[in-house]
Amino acid sequence: MSSSVSARPPAKRGRPGHDLESVLAAAVRLFNERGYEATGMEALARSLGITKSAIYHHVASKEELLRMATDRALDGLFEAAEQARARDGRAIERLEFLTERSVHVLAERLPFVTLLLRVRGNTDVERRAVERRRAFDHLVAELMERAVAEGDLRPDIDPAVGARLLFGMVNSLTEWYRPGGGMDVGDLAALVRTTAFEGLRV
Amino acid sequence: MSSSVSARPPAKRGRPGHDLESVLAAAVRLFNERGYEATGMEALARSLGITKSAIYHHVASKEELLRMATDRALDGLFEAAEQARARDGRAIERLEFLTERSVHVLAERLPFVTLLLRVRGNTDVERRAVERRRAFDHLVAELMERAVAEGDLRPDIDPAVGARLLFGMVNSLTEWYRPGGGMDVGDLAALVRTTAFEGLRV
Repeated sequence: MSSSVSARPPAKRGRPGHDLESVLAAAVRLFNERGYEATGMEALARSLGITKSAIYHHVASKEELLRMATDRALDGLFEAAEQARARDGRAIERLEFLTERSVHVLAERLPFVTLLLRVRGNTDVERRAVERRRAFDHLVAELMERAVAEGDLRPDIDPAVGARLLFGMVNSLTEWYRPGGGMDVGDLAALVRTTAFEGLRV
Repeated sequence: MSSSVSARPPAKRGRPGHDLESVLAAAVRLFNERGYEATGMEALARSLGITKSAIYHHVASKEELLRMATDRALDGLFEAAEQARARDGRAIERLEFLTERSVHVLAERLPFVTLLLRVRGNTDVERRAVERRRAFDHLVAELMERAVAEGDLRPDIDPAVGARLLFGMVNSLTEWYRPGGGMDVGDLAALVRTTAFEGLRV
């Protein structure tokens, strides 16, 4: 960092721990706590103990932070879908794999997915996130449709509705799962898969 | 209505259709669209085409509207729990009944439940709503525990986690179900029950 004298203390800019990643993490925490609309760059700067201009050193705008955050969630989900697609076997097995992988993505990227699920599509960045979410839902519905055609899934469930119920269950993790709370993610993923595919009843 | 002359046009106060119920409905719509924090009484008055004082004729505060809205959702869920409790038979049957009834409550009181699920507990009214939600979750978990003890539910599921997964699926309706969209509520309730208890697999 430069040691030149300026109106704003330059030392703060390079303060350890305030790289793009930590700015993004703080932004997502505030967006989730107070709402994206209600959170300004000023509040974000205050919560990090740095100046607004120090934030603009890392990102161009609040929307840019939202784009990065929602992409973090969506990229994880699409990677899981790609891994599922690449597997051999029946559609129901790919669907079960995708269910488990999605639980891992949610657990590992919890604040990002939490934010994604609250996005309603009021700006270009939000609309793009909503469109990518829809594309993912469509991939899940396609897998369900194939699994029904292969005779493995109950035929009385409309694949689009089934996909929504399945991911309604998966996404509910953002409401109550807390990392480090003593629940192994692999166990949780298996439990969600079993509950969704085999049901709660013995 | 009084016909006395005042600074604000009194005619608007009594305009048909602007009773407490329509004020509440408009408030809940705005809260859901823009967020509770971000919505002021001024914006609510504008959306109704009436004055702020006309709103205060019906309710004391924005918090009062939130309290009425979340109670509308919670009262429905607790009525369903009470109906389930009053039934004879095995715990799993009461749980299946409660699942179906909850789908009906969600479908019939959709905007109110949608708002309830977004409440995070920043004010007294919000904290009270969160506490009532927890009490309902606790009732569901108790039913699950009993159903496990009676040998009807899979014993490898922790009742609290099972209750969250079950209602994660039920509550996801607020994300995608639209009344009048051609889906019969009774069919949907049966579908959610079957999916949750029997699973997606054939």
